Amino acid sequence: MPRLTSDRRKLKKIYILFALVLFSSLLKAQEPGKVLTSVFDEALTDKTAYSQLEYLSKNTKGRLSGSPASFKAIEYTRQALINAGADTVWLQKVMVPNWKRGVENCRITSSKSGSEELSITALGLSVGTDANGLKSKVIEVHDFEELRAIGRKRIEGKIVFFNRPLDNKLINTFSAYSGAVNQRTSGASEASKYGAIAVIVRSMNPFLDNFPHTGVTHYADSVNPIPAVAVSTIGAELLSKWLKTDSTLTATLISTCKIYPDTVSYNVIGEIRGALKPHEYITVGGHLDAWDIAEGAHDDAGGCVQAIEMIRIYKKLGIKPKRTVRAVMFMNEEMSSTGGKAYAEEAKKKGEIHYAALESDRGVMSPRGFGFDAEGTRLEKLKSLASWFAPFNIRDFDTGEGGSDISPLKAMGALQIAFIPDAQRYFSYHHSANDTFEQVNIRELQMGSAGIASLIYLIDLFDL
Amino acid sequence: MPRLTSDRRKLKKIYILFALVLFSSLLKAQEPGKVLTSVFDEALTDKTAYSQLEYLSKNTKGRLSGSPASFKAIEYTRQALINAGADTVWLQKVMVPNWKRGVENCRITSSKSGSEELSITALGLSVGTDANGLKSKVIEVHDFEELRAIGRKRIEGKIVFFNRPLDNKLINTFSAYSGAVNQRTSGASEASKYGAIAVIVRSMNPFLDNFPHTGVTHYADSVNPIPAVAVSTIGAELLSKWLKTDSTLTATLISTCKIYPDTVSYNVIGEIRGALKPHEYITVGGHLDAWDIAEGAHDDAGGCVQAIEMIRIYKKLGIKPKRTVRAVMFMNEEMSSTGGKAYAEEAKKKGEIHYAALESDRGVMSPRGFGFDAEGTRLEKLKSLASWFAPFNIRDFDTGEGGSDISPLKAMGALQIAFIPDAQRYFSYHHSANDTFEQVNIRELQMGSAGIASLIYLIDLFDL
Repeated sequence: MPRLTSDRRKLKKIYILFALVLFSSLLKAQEPGKVLTSVFDEALTDKTAYSQLEYLSKNTKGRLSGSPASFKAIEYTRQALINAGADTVWLQKVMVPNWKRGVENCRITSSKSGSEELSITALGLSVGTDANGLKSKVIEVHDFEELRAIGRKRIEGKIVFFNRPLDNKLINTFSAYSGAVNQRTSGASEASKYGAIAVIVRSMNPFLDNFPHTGVTHYADSVNPIPAVAVSTIGAELLSKWLKTDSTLTATLISTCKIYPDTVSYNVIGEIRGALKPHEYITVGGHLDAWDIAEGAHDDAGGCVQAIEMIRIYKKLGIKPKRTVRAVMFMNEEMSSTGGKAYAEEAKKKGEIHYAALESDRGVMSPRGFGFDAEGTRLEKLKSLASWFAPFNIRDFDTGEGGSDISPLKAMGALQIAFIPDAQRYFSYHHSANDTFEQVNIRELQMGSAGIASLIYLIDLFDL
Repeated sequence: MPRLTSDRRKLKKIYILFALVLFSSLLKAQEPGKVLTSVFDEALTDKTAYSQLEYLSKNTKGRLSGSPASFKAIEYTRQALINAGADTVWLQKVMVPNWKRGVENCRITSSKSGSEELSITALGLSVGTDANGLKSKVIEVHDFEELRAIGRKRIEGKIVFFNRPLDNKLINTFSAYSGAVNQRTSGASEASKYGAIAVIVRSMNPFLDNFPHTGVTHYADSVNPIPAVAVSTIGAELLSKWLKTDSTLTATLISTCKIYPDTVSYNVIGEIRGALKPHEYITVGGHLDAWDIAEGAHDDAGGCVQAIEMIRIYKKLGIKPKRTVRAVMFMNEEMSSTGGKAYAEEAKKKGEIHYAALESDRGVMSPRGFGFDAEGTRLEKLKSLASWFAPFNIRDFDTGEGGSDISPLKAMGALQIAFIPDAQRYFSYHHSANDTFEQVNIRELQMGSAGIASLIYLIDLFDL
């Protein structure tokens, strides 16, 4: 009899255990939706990230790699990651170019139309003129074919003016940008081949305004590097109009920017140690450097504070990812992406397993979705995550590239993910003095932070 | 033999005719996608609507119904509709309230904290104070239940301060607004029942800033109307903080606004006569009036210029809708929607058949989709239109209400459609001096115009 009682007790225990397991698995099935709601609740009612954005925009404005402002931003975000509750925070050494803008000025003079100063700014990594500048006739071209067709005889000794606008018919503004940006990245190099002495490039701005938009320019090894500046879209229209009536118009261009020897800077990294698979890594990042003429609020302080916000939210809500999750502020995305390269190199050296990486470097407007560099079943699974985001009106889950800072992790097998905000207004700010804190809306920023923290949580949870 | 030749000729003609019909029907099947592309191309490369928006914002600022600025806006949009190529343009008489803001000022004084001026603005249709204003203790409440619980004894003779913030956890900002706005629309009326002498209402603003947001307030017939003002969210936080340490704090409130007898104003209407069913009407509209303290760029000059833009695009591209399509600038949406009512009344009197109506009055940020007040098969058909908009990244096709100006057409059978832009940042502008031209992005406006013109084209084409 005692035996039987004991058996019945055991049976009862098993029933209870079974019921508990069933119940907890049911709970578990409900959980992700609830977690996502709590993530959005937290992001939408907390101002930490927005305050950080304000600090980076206003107090570390113009934080180009190697600049004093960039070191201030490094220290500030290091502290912000500690405050967010990251288990470990550290700086990672990165060599960066050291390029400095000088005096810049461009005056055009025409016998027909008079004389006018254009709103210009040197392109990043451009060589400069001397203090007196240079003076020459200007020849307008729209692409490298036209340059070739015109030929050395007519180009030699002149300033080449690249004036192909962004194609505003394209719905995807990044496609419009891609379709025009070779004028900026390679225009100086190409024009130099035909003997040009400088280039003026129409700003990569879909709008007509007076902000010049900078950005990097590269010289091919074989060419004589010549000064390169961007002109505002209004300036480009004026110059083009004047050239139509007076092809002998001259421009006097001063741009005393200089390249100094490379210098030391840092990526800023904070991580939450994975609870189950600490040796697998998920990286979420933006870049901390910004163009010297900009507050760099959208590009890309916003991406940085969204990464820090993920750490803060996980810690605040007690979310314990299985894998180690890192927020990374990459240095020097704008000039030569050495931050992303240094990060991947060290990871490789240490034999780290990089599972996935997300980059937020397309501005921090309202989130539309995510782009995944995946295919087949994995892509389908990732796309099916959209259903979790329907309550938050984030709907676009599709193929896409990740971004330049995380791209070196691709070879190590890390899934590449891009955060995709609504980008209709992004290129009015991009790389210009118009990229200010005031152009960021707090709710749009918060919705993006919540979306990113939620996506990474699900990818880790479901092993996608 | 001549006979036979003639028959063969006839047969040949029939074959050719048949081939032509077949070919043109094939062409027709391809057409809508091409038409949509041409609509977006046109909208995204033309600045007419953006210039109109600038004019309305800067030159007819504060165009409250009955104001000189409102008549300037009426004449300007009438001319804009003619310029857009509308077949007929006319004004439709509407009686409107005539309410005028006066001097306004609010100072709070506390024995504990000192004295401070709050940023306030009278609510629309509010009664005023006399020139000396009124002075009284302040009692903070959060909803009408609390008002009831506190009761007449403690409220009588005091100023009631409604301080329930918008719930920022709600993803849909319009839901957050709806959940708080009864403080503004009925707070004065409810507080008056308990003997309050005035109300100060926290602005319907999800953000912390110093812009007071106005909006209409209504008095129940049975109550003594008392002055009502909105306070900025920063002002509301300060007042609440001071009240916590000093419940004897007093406010001196001056708001010498006044209601004058109703006056005559106009809706502005322009139409393209239908090619096949001219006696069926599709209405697309926004409201032309705006709050007196605002440029009213998002609310709702944007909606107006999008409606005019539809006419311009159809005429420019030679799109000939089957039904008569109208762009309507409704007057007096903000105070008592008499414009919408007058429009529906005349339509009813004339026995017009109103097929569908779309309202754009949720700001002109990037388009997300459309809401349809439909169900069953019709709703499914309307939702299936989403596939046409995938190339333009407009994806949200769902149920929804149309809007207050078109709602009187519902009883006449008109399908109610709301244009749905991304509204995360809308309520930072709404009804405040922060609603300026500069807050509108040209591409976001253009994308919305193209979306609206495309949707109306498809609904008319497919008889949805």
